Parts: sequence; C-alpha cells; structure tokens
Amino acid sequence: MTMTVLGLGAMGQALATAFVKAGLPTTVWNRSAHKAEALAGLGAVRAETVADAVREADLVVVCVLDYAAVREVLEPVAEQLSGRVLLNVTNGTAADARRLAEWASAHGVSYVDGGIMAIPQGIGRPESVILYSGSREAFDRWAVPLGAWGTGKFLGTDPGLAALHDLALLGAMYGMFAGAFHATAMAGTEGVPAERFTEDLLVPWLHSMVDVLPMLAGNTSVSEERRLVERVALTNIVSTSAAQGVPEHLIAPLRSLLDAHAEPAATA
Amino acid sequence: MTMTVLGLGAMGQALATAFVKAGLPTTVWNRSAHKAEALAGLGAVRAETVADAVREADLVVVCVLDYAAVREVLEPVAEQLSGRVLLNVTNGTAADARRLAEWASAHGVSYVDGGIMAIPQGIGRPESVILYSGSREAFDRWAVPLGAWGTGKFLGTDPGLAALHDLALLGAMYGMFAGAFHATAMAGTEGVPAERFTEDLLVPWLHSMVDVLPMLAGNTSVSEERRLVERVALTNIVSTSAAQGVPEHLIAPLRSLLDAHAEPAATA
Ligand SMILES: NC(=O)c1ccc[n+]([C@@H]2O[C@H](COP(=O)([O-])OP(=O)(O)OC[C@H]3O[C@@H](n4cnc5c(N)ncnc54)[C@H](OP(=O)(O)O)[C@@H]3O)[C@@H](O)[C@H]2O)c1
Ligand SMILES: NC(=O)c1ccc[n+]([C@@H]2O[C@H](COP(=O)([O-])OP(=O)(O)OC[C@H]3O[C@@H](n4cnc5c(N)ncnc54)[C@H](OP(=O)(O)O)[C@@H]3O)[C@@H](O)[C@H]2O)c1
Repeated sequence: MTMTVLGLGAMGQALATAFVKAGLPTTVWNRSAHKAEALAGLGAVRAETVADAVREADLVVVCVLDYAAVREVLEPVAEQLSGRVLLNVTNGTAADARRLAEWASAHGVSYVDGGIMAIPQGIGRPESVILYSGSREAFDRWAVPLGAWGTGKFLGTDPGLAALHDLALLGAMYGMFAGAFHATAMAGTEGVPAERFTEDLLVPWLHSMVDVLPMLAGNTSVSEERRLVERVALTNIVSTSAAQGVPEHLIAPLRSLLDAHAEPAATA
Repeated sequence: MTMTVLGLGAMGQALATAFVKAGLPTTVWNRSAHKAEALAGLGAVRAETVADAVREADLVVVCVLDYAAVREVLEPVAEQLSGRVLLNVTNGTAADARRLAEWASAHGVSYVDGGIMAIPQGIGRPESVILYSGSREAFDRWAVPLGAWGTGKFLGTDPGLAALHDLALLGAMYGMFAGAFHATAMAGTEGVPAERFTEDLLVPWLHSMVDVLPMLAGNTSVSEERRLVERVALTNIVSTSAAQGVPEHLIAPLRSLLDAHAEPAATA
C-alpha cells in the first residue's frame, strides 16, 4: 500500500507527516518544490512532477487551495489515475465534490471526498475527526492507514455529504470566532489584554455554552418569555458595543439572525 | 447574615434555591406571587411586598427582566435600603450599572453589579462563573455566601465592568449559537436530525475549536495565505447554503465580519 500526497500547504504537510510517522510508504509533491524538503528529511519520497508522484500510488490524496487547483493538478494525469483511489480533502461545495466524483468515475477512478475537521496541529490525534463520503469500498480499504490522521467518520455514498457537513461545521466555527473576536474587542476597550480575557473568561464560558447546544437542539419551541430575555440582552450588547466604540455591525446581524431563527434552529 | 432575592424568574429561583440549600436565611419576593411557592416549600421566607422583603435583609439581590423593572421594584423602598448591600444581577449595559450605582450611593446603599455566566441549571456548580464589580468592600464581605452560586470573579471597582464583560461573553455565545443553528439547518437539508448532528459532530467540533482561540488571541497578524484559505471556505459555505435552500443571510454576514475583523481580532 503506497500513498501519495499532492499539495504540501499547512494541511498537506500535516497529512503527509502523519503517514510517514505511521510508517506508511509516502510520496509527496507540491507546486513550489521547497515545501517538500522537511518531508523528504522525514523519509518521504519526493516527486518532481505530478505524473511521477502518482505512478506507484494506490491512494492519491489531494489537498490544495480550491477545486480549480485540484483540476489543474489532476487533469493532466487522468489516464494514469485509472484503477486507483482518489481522496480529495480540498475544501469545496457539495456540488464540487459530486462533479469531481463523476469525473473520477469517467476515468475509472474510485472517489472518496474528505472533510478535515482539525487544524494542522491536530492531525494525528484521535480527537480529530475526518469526515468521508463517496465510495464505501474504497473507504473501507483505506480506513486503517487513514486512522493515522484521526478518527474517520463515513457519512454515506453521496460524495457531497462530507463537504456538506464540513461546511456546516465550519460555518458554526466562524460564527463562534466572530462572536469571540467581538467579545475580545469589547473587553479590549477597557484595556483587558486579549490573551488574558480569552484564557480566563472566554474559553471556559464558551465550553460551558457549547454543552448547552444539545438541550437547544432537542427543544422544539422557544417561549415568549425566553425570547424577551434574549432580546433585552442582545439590545444591551449592541448598545454597549456602540458606547464602547466597538463597531456594532460585528454583532448587530446576530440579533436579526436569532430573531429569524429562534424556531427553525430547533426543528431543522 | 440574611439575604433577600427580588425576582423569581428562571434565574432568580435558581439563585434563591442555591442560598437556601447552602443553609442561608433567605427571603424571597416576586411580582407574580405564585413563583415563590416552590422556594417557600424549601424553607425560604416568602414576603408579600418588596418593603417586607428588604426589611431584615443585609444583602438584597435583584434579578428581574431589565433595568426598567429594577427601578420599578427598588425606587419605592430607596430609604429602607440605606446601609445595606444591593447586588443587581439583572442584565444591563455598563452605563445602566454605573447609573444605578450612583443612585444607590445617593441613598447610602453599597452597590455591587453582577453578571451571571451560567444558565439556571448551572447555578451552584463551581464551574459556573459569576462576574462582579463595584464596591470591593461589599463584595469581600459577601464573597463566601455568594460562593453558593459558583465561582465569583471581582473585576474592579468601576460598577460597569461586570456588565461589560457579561455582554462581551454573551455576544460570543450568540455568535456561536447563530453558527450552530445555521450548521444544524444545513445538516437538516440532508435529513440529519438536529439532535444527532449536534451530539455526534457539532459539540465535539466546537469544543476543539474553542481551544484554538488562545492561539488566535496571541497572534498579531493573519497571513495573506491564511486569509485566502478562509475566503474560499466561507464562499463555499455561502454557496452550499444557497444550494441546499438554507437562507444565506444566516451566514453571509460572518464573511464580512471576518474580512473586517481579521486584524483587530488579535490586537484588540
Ligand atoms: N489549514 C487548516 O487549518 C485547514 C483545516 C482543514 C482543512 N483545510 C483545507 O486544506 C486545504 C489546504 O489548506 P492549507 O491550509 O494547506 O492551505 P495553504 O497552506 O495555503 O496551502 C495551499 C496549497 O495549495 C497549493 N496550490 C494552490 N493553488 C495551486 C495550483 N493552482 N496548483 C497546484 N497547487 C496549488 C499550494 O501550492 P504552493 O505551495 O505552490 O503555493 C499549497 O500547497 C484547503 O482546502 C483548506 O480548506 C485546512
Ligand atoms: N435564564 C438564564 O439563562 C439567564 C442567564 C444569565 C442571566 N440571566 C439574567 O437574569 C435576569 C432574569 O432572567 P430570567 O431568565 O429569570 O427571566 P424570566 O424567567 O423571564 O423572569 C423575569 C423576571 O422579571 C420579573 N419582572 C419583569 N418585569 C417586572 C417588573 N416590571 N416588575 C417586577 N418584576 C418584573 C418577572 O416577574 P413576573 O414573574 O411577575 O413576571 C420575573 O420574575 C435577566 O436579566 C437575564 O438576562 C438569565
């Protein structure tokens, strides 16, 4: 079982490094060749071209910026990929993944789409979740070596499912980050350093509120009383932000989101 | 040391119950009298009027809907409050808290403002954080009995500080909730039940991303490369939301928030 990783940005390097550390024979390629140096030092085989990189590979992993880059990298070697497994972990839409799966199928390639729910530093830890969808058979064949990255979850044979879940979770992350950045800015107006505020108050608070989510997901309705309390709090957040000179456009949209979403949130 | 709790909504009841369970002599009052029944059953003294409720109290806690309600409850008993400690844990702006502190001072009342960073079910657990600001002396005097609610953090003698931090943290929570609701709606478009998605994927994912926040807070700049990767992901989230029929207005504002906030987030 030999594996190739195409694309050695922050994430591609982490993925290839985890393979090498697990003792798996790994070939690597990157458009800018210098990014392969550290991996070559660890024992990976460095390929000069994409064609060289995929020649001996049973599993070809692609991890680049976007789908345009995926196409640019893969189209010239389409014929060579025949009979192999293509695992694309580049961020894209569900529709992108479905189209690439069709392209792969037309070239006799088994396709698996992946969504990496971790930062590069998290790769290799069992807590890190990797979402997969597409060819069940190909996934099963590679599930053990892919365990070197983290815990794999196969979501179904529709190749778009991993991207859909990935984007949903990223959206949740961005919402959390936006709220956190706004909070940090507000505390900053009273001279509280971002690091101290984040570690002492923000992180423990958000952990405790994340644990409230299952209760909200199970709730099918929000009482009028509850809505009133939340509206008072959001109005206070907006007006205190303004009074402290923190742009209110950072938080004001959330008020309308919550108003609009109080019901669907629970029932969706 | 006798304490009175004015306002027995969801939160006021939890606060008064924690006092009673800690063996503290507690008097309670609520505008709608029936909400005092459960507490009377636990051993609290039930007052018919606010004047009765505050007569014997060394510490008067107010927990009602908003500051208009606080004024309505307290103004008629201003003279009686003289010499006592007033602890207001009603959600309000930093300016509201400062104004109420002035009013208290004008009536010879020691003022402490509180921000309860927990849901009613969390009251009484050491993990639950209660923020305080205002009279340091009054806080120190009451710190031990107030420990019955959770872990107290005194933020400074400016009475507005607890509200400022409270609202900042609530803003972070709403950002996280908005993102989570959007994520649940997206998963729902493929028939994934909200409860399962939330417990299996969303909660562990958000916990791991909350732990990334200290790294972001310590970072003073975001590389152009990083920004490009994030922009691709956000564009994919927005277009997949649209393709799945999930209103994009739930997530689209976050893209501009992040664009606008990539720098200040870290340095604020
Ligand atoms: N970093 C994370 O925290 C993280 C987490 C989860 C998922 N991901 C996903 O992983 C993927 C890669 O992210 P990253 O963080 O590794 O990004 P990155 O560090 O910016 O690396 C981007 C990679 O894409 C390559 N690339 C860009 N355009 C190309 C083209 N036209 N042809 C060939 N290669 C091209 C770059 O090659 P050069 O070196 O030649 O520029 C580089 O290897 C993205 O889809 C991202 O969403 C990242
Ligand atoms: N619940 C939470 O998760 C939570 C968490 C942290 C902080 N808080 C804060 O705690 C405070 C109370 O919230 P809650 O959840 O307990 O709300 P709630 O269950 O809706 O109760 C509201 C309370 O305010 C009273 N009230 C409203 N208008 C009044 C008026 N004009 N005069 C006298 N009393 C009046 C109500 O009395 P009636 O019973 O007569 O209507 C009731 O006791 C809010 O500031 C909220 O932000 C709540």
